Amino acid sequence: MKQGTSAKEAQAFAAVLEQQGVKVHFSEGASQTVLGLVGDTTNIDEESLRAHHLVEKVIRVQAPYKRAHRQFHPENTRIDIAAPSGPDRHIGAGYLGIIAGPCSVESREQIITIAASVKQSGAGFLRGGAFKPRTSPYSFQGLGDEGLTLLLEAKKETGLPIVSELMDVKHLDGFNEVDIIQIGARNMQNFTLLKELGRCGKPVLLKRGLASTIKEFLMAAEYLIAGGNDRIVLCERGIRTFEDFTRNTLDLSAVPGLKKESHLPVIVDPSHATGLSWMVPALAKAAIAAGADGIMVEVHNNPETARCDGEQSITPADFAGLMEMIQKYAAIEGKQIA
Amino acid sequence: MKQGTSAKEAQAFAAVLEQQGVKVHFSEGASQTVLGLVGDTTNIDEESLRAHHLVEKVIRVQAPYKRAHRQFHPENTRIDIAAPSGPDRHIGAGYLGIIAGPCSVESREQIITIAASVKQSGAGFLRGGAFKPRTSPYSFQGLGDEGLTLLLEAKKETGLPIVSELMDVKHLDGFNEVDIIQIGARNMQNFTLLKELGRCGKPVLLKRGLASTIKEFLMAAEYLIAGGNDRIVLCERGIRTFEDFTRNTLDLSAVPGLKKESHLPVIVDPSHATGLSWMVPALAKAAIAAGADGIMVEVHNNPETARCDGEQSITPADFAGLMEMIQKYAAIEGKQIA
Amino acid sequence: MKQGTSAKEAQAFAAVLEQQGVKVHFSEGASQTVLGLVGDTTNIDEESLRAHHLVEKVIRVQAPYKRAHRQFHPENTRIDIAAPSGPDRHIGAGYLGIIAGPCSVESREQIITIAASVKQSGAGFLRGGAFKPRTSPYSFQGLGDEGLTLLLEAKKETGLPIVSELMDVKHLDGFNEVDIIQIGARNMQNFTLLKELGRCGKPVLLKRGLASTIKEFLMAAEYLIAGGNDRIVLCERGIRTFEDFTRNTLDLSAVPGLKKESHLPVIVDPSHATGLSWMVPALAKAAIAAGADGIMVEVHNNPETARCDGEQSITPADFAGLMEMIQKYAAIEGKQIA
Amino acid sequence: MKQGTSAKEAQAFAAVLEQQGVKVHFSEGASQTVLGLVGDTTNIDEESLRAHHLVEKVIRVQAPYKRAHRQFHPENTRIDIAAPSGPDRHIGAGYLGIIAGPCSVESREQIITIAASVKQSGAGFLRGGAFKPRTSPYSFQGLGDEGLTLLLEAKKETGLPIVSELMDVKHLDGFNEVDIIQIGARNMQNFTLLKELGRCGKPVLLKRGLASTIKEFLMAAEYLIAGGNDRIVLCERGIRTFEDFTRNTLDLSAVPGLKKESHLPVIVDPSHATGLSWMVPALAKAAIAAGADGIMVEVHNNPETARCDGEQSITPADFAGLMEMIQKYAAIEGKQIA
Repeated sequence: MKQGTSAKEAQAFAAVLEQQGVKVHFSEGASQTVLGLVGDTTNIDEESLRAHHLVEKVIRVQAPYKRAHRQFHPENTRIDIAAPSGPDRHIGAGYLGIIAGPCSVESREQIITIAASVKQSGAGFLRGGAFKPRTSPYSFQGLGDEGLTLLLEAKKETGLPIVSELMDVKHLDGFNEVDIIQIGARNMQNFTLLKELGRCGKPVLLKRGLASTIKEFLMAAEYLIAGGNDRIVLCERGIRTFEDFTRNTLDLSAVPGLKKESHLPVIVDPSHATGLSWMVPALAKAAIAAGADGIMVEVHNNPETARCDGEQSITPADFAGLMEMIQKYAAIEGKQIA
Repeated sequence: MKQGTSAKEAQAFAAVLEQQGVKVHFSEGASQTVLGLVGDTTNIDEESLRAHHLVEKVIRVQAPYKRAHRQFHPENTRIDIAAPSGPDRHIGAGYLGIIAGPCSVESREQIITIAASVKQSGAGFLRGGAFKPRTSPYSFQGLGDEGLTLLLEAKKETGLPIVSELMDVKHLDGFNEVDIIQIGARNMQNFTLLKELGRCGKPVLLKRGLASTIKEFLMAAEYLIAGGNDRIVLCERGIRTFEDFTRNTLDLSAVPGLKKESHLPVIVDPSHATGLSWMVPALAKAAIAAGADGIMVEVHNNPETARCDGEQSITPADFAGLMEMIQKYAAIEGKQIA
Repeated sequence: MKQGTSAKEAQAFAAVLEQQGVKVHFSEGASQTVLGLVGDTTNIDEESLRAHHLVEKVIRVQAPYKRAHRQFHPENTRIDIAAPSGPDRHIGAGYLGIIAGPCSVESREQIITIAASVKQSGAGFLRGGAFKPRTSPYSFQGLGDEGLTLLLEAKKETGLPIVSELMDVKHLDGFNEVDIIQIGARNMQNFTLLKELGRCGKPVLLKRGLASTIKEFLMAAEYLIAGGNDRIVLCERGIRTFEDFTRNTLDLSAVPGLKKESHLPVIVDPSHATGLSWMVPALAKAAIAAGADGIMVEVHNNPETARCDGEQSITPADFAGLMEMIQKYAAIEGKQIA
Repeated sequence: MKQGTSAKEAQAFAAVLEQQGVKVHFSEGASQTVLGLVGDTTNIDEESLRAHHLVEKVIRVQAPYKRAHRQFHPENTRIDIAAPSGPDRHIGAGYLGIIAGPCSVESREQIITIAASVKQSGAGFLRGGAFKPRTSPYSFQGLGDEGLTLLLEAKKETGLPIVSELMDVKHLDGFNEVDIIQIGARNMQNFTLLKELGRCGKPVLLKRGLASTIKEFLMAAEYLIAGGNDRIVLCERGIRTFEDFTRNTLDLSAVPGLKKESHLPVIVDPSHATGLSWMVPALAKAAIAAGADGIMVEVHNNPETARCDGEQSITPADFAGLMEMIQKYAAIEGKQIA
């Protein structure tokens, strides 16, 4: 409370707060009184507290997310995904999800060639973009529905479950056979999209917004869980900082950070984080070493002609080499490749 | 080009580029060759250039936006908005747009009281949120359609044109009588929303994303213009930095920066930028001094009970005091309050 | 305290804290106990608290600076500087300090020409660098002692008090007749320099570090005051963010922020903040509008041949035009140019 | 060049540039001319180019550092440090430097106990601060010379070479028997310190400034090399970003980035980067996986009573566990622990 708040004012204020379901404890100092709110503070609106004329400062001690928090679910969550052929895939709780594929689906031949190749090297999932968010209106925006169709052919051909980005609720029907729906970094706080996916039973790969804190990231996951969908894979993909050597700054401390705060699995996308293919293997290994539950890596059979993000795509040969290393790292860390 | 690229390779590469509509000039150095691409480079895909095995670095000299650029339209653009009563309002080209009102519409009485009060003090536009993007799924999300209805009543009652945020294309029908559609910071790169609004004739108030560069901000405007809508007001509202004293860091250098790069009007929202009502008047004045074409300020008749963002709302009395100062500043700067 | 801390453990821990001169209040919740430390917490070491095995989180409510805080000195501090001729100059408490001059002293003619010109336009202080911090070891590092000598000649010639940057304690003797010693942004946390200047009676112009929070900035001022020197002018000069349109991002919200937290005067340097001379006038005006106690501006009679930072220097003619506007702004704000 | 620059003007300008030792190539476009400067551009002053009235934009293609660049020294540099007993230690070129010890030296018993323990676990170097940079003037500032004496005793007792931070040139004499002189993050651009250490033959552990780009970091190393000292170990220790979950954001992409740009060895300090001891092992392993040439880790036998940074110190037992993992990772990566 501000200096000069009388005991009577403070008590009246506390009484209002207690009606909102918390208990209030008083710490009266020489010059200032501190009120401690105890109980479930999820519904207390910090902003209106801050605006109150008697309040000097509001400090949140409890996390503002509840169901995404590890206290709510102390065990690591494992996401299970049925594969069209072969055993189910898992991400989290000891299982590494290895997701590989091109930035965008370009042709039948391209996606099937890459899919076969990454499967051969040990990937568990195929990624590929059909709808692409692009900074410039003049850039290639993805093949759209046709891209999804080609992706499903690659799924059928190789037996790999697929991951693809949804940009708009109106496309949701086309994602029926997509195994994991990706929410891109720019849409991490697209709340209408999050609410819609909360109602949908499909696993969601939620990418961290490039200016989002760990807490906001978990609040976005909370939107999904509050809506009824707890099949979430969190994906660290770099944050925006002053450093311009890399496209973004990969925040690997988010891996132990997210895993301490939450029970949800966490994977890392070194391709988008750095924008530089030659850095991808080093950082993919680092992600596993830091405790990630998987990686998402862009692989293209011909990065030079890729219609987007070629600079960050590694070749199938590099991916094969990376997977050999990942297998060794997984063994040390006691993890299994799904 | 990378060191060791042969003259023949460089020429072959240049030939491919020239087929894309640019001219290529060679600077051959002792150890490296630099190719200069001259002409309309808007359609050249930087990313695939970067991925090419002969390319070491790609540096863009021309801006990637064309129609939002001042070269395309050397005069300042003025946005005209019909007012339900009284003369048209203008923003830009010597006219200051003063937009004031509560964060969210809460009740008929609240919105009409505030509208009448800010009009009295000299505001030209009423703002109010009906659909609210909120970080927490447990926070008040706005009154929705009912909020829009109340806002339209306030418009009718006071004659002030209104500004309100659109979060989802599916709500667009309800915005028929909204005079300026606001795109929030989190949606600045919601490309499906931008494409839709490009097709719609209404003025758009586009807020800068909190991790967006000036160039990305203008690229988002380019999406709208490329779609056919050039009635755009840009709004600087703070960017995310390491400083946590304020909610965001208001980037006032963006005002002269945007106005140099582009012909579009630029306004400033000091309320969301700082999150601190006591800072708002100082920064609102600073915005006008920096050359802004207007301000957007949150005003609430009872900030303490505001259902969102009360901490950043000033009172009608403070707003009246601010407007007296703004009038003096406008006179010095030779601007007219619309 | 962590969940599971027993009452006995918490009490024992509180007893240790009370021996350090604070009172401890308990808020016992259903699952967690919060201890409130009341009194002078300046000497409490947050870091060792955080490391304690019973402690889950430490949140500081009081500011960690004491003498720089406005509570310690509720009135605005005014810095008085004797001028070699004419009346004393003041900065703060209603007086605007206008500091102008070249980035670095280059020659007798250059510095005297510029000094005479900026004095003519209304500047109260002459700035000029003799020792220059440069990112590259191959760049011009300033004229050193010779530069100081030329600066003192300009002081004698024009009667303007001078401001120059000290990079190393070993040069301090040469600064005897320098009126305000500048500590550059890179040295804001050069604690050996701060301690030395705390012992020196001269006014210090302390520039904010480019990655320093407002709190760290005031802690650096606290080093000076704790050492015995409270003649401090704080200078906001831009912080480092992801935005690369400008060299740094000028944080004008720091002006009201610093003035609310502290009694010290605050000036703004738009030249270093933006690195772009064409932006300087707009932001200099904005600084005054935001409540700054002055500005520091780079002026060069021939920016094209300036040996450093020419790109950010305005011409004497532009400075004269700026001063005309500043005078109008000062009148509105009820401030006097020193 | 700006639009409208005549061919004659451009040629005259180019002639001046060529006098500075570069060759100038012309790319004349429809509306603009681009000049390409070829040759050794290290001495060209970008800033004065930018200030020239004919120049619109200056873009640097070559790196501004020369001797720190890998082109200057294609092989990885290995730093050799004589150990008081046992074989020489190495950092870089296949050797991992493992540096462990307390944040600050507190007592004879403390430093010797920790030294013996980390040696036992496999550390190659002992770290310990005698002079401590502290944000608050009221915090413990280190034992000073006494701290150095105790550190040297620990060196003698255990045979471990030592690493300690130098804050001021005037303390340099006391560092005669210190094996690696550490330059802290706040001093990375303390150019007077860098120049002095350039003249000194001792290995320098240079920490990245918390707001420094990779390029500025290498420019600071260039100061040392230009002064004659190329025995440099670069240390990534986190950069400042908006994320406040960790104290700083560890930028592991700087490891492959620095190693691509430069021949110098690169180590990682996860303790200062995160400020959270429970994150240190995960990120230490990640550093090795990302290709680092070593780690620097804070170890304290009693973190709770540590006089600084206890929160980020791991226990000797945790360090022993970490070293077991590091050994496995080193084996996979084909590195040897020095």
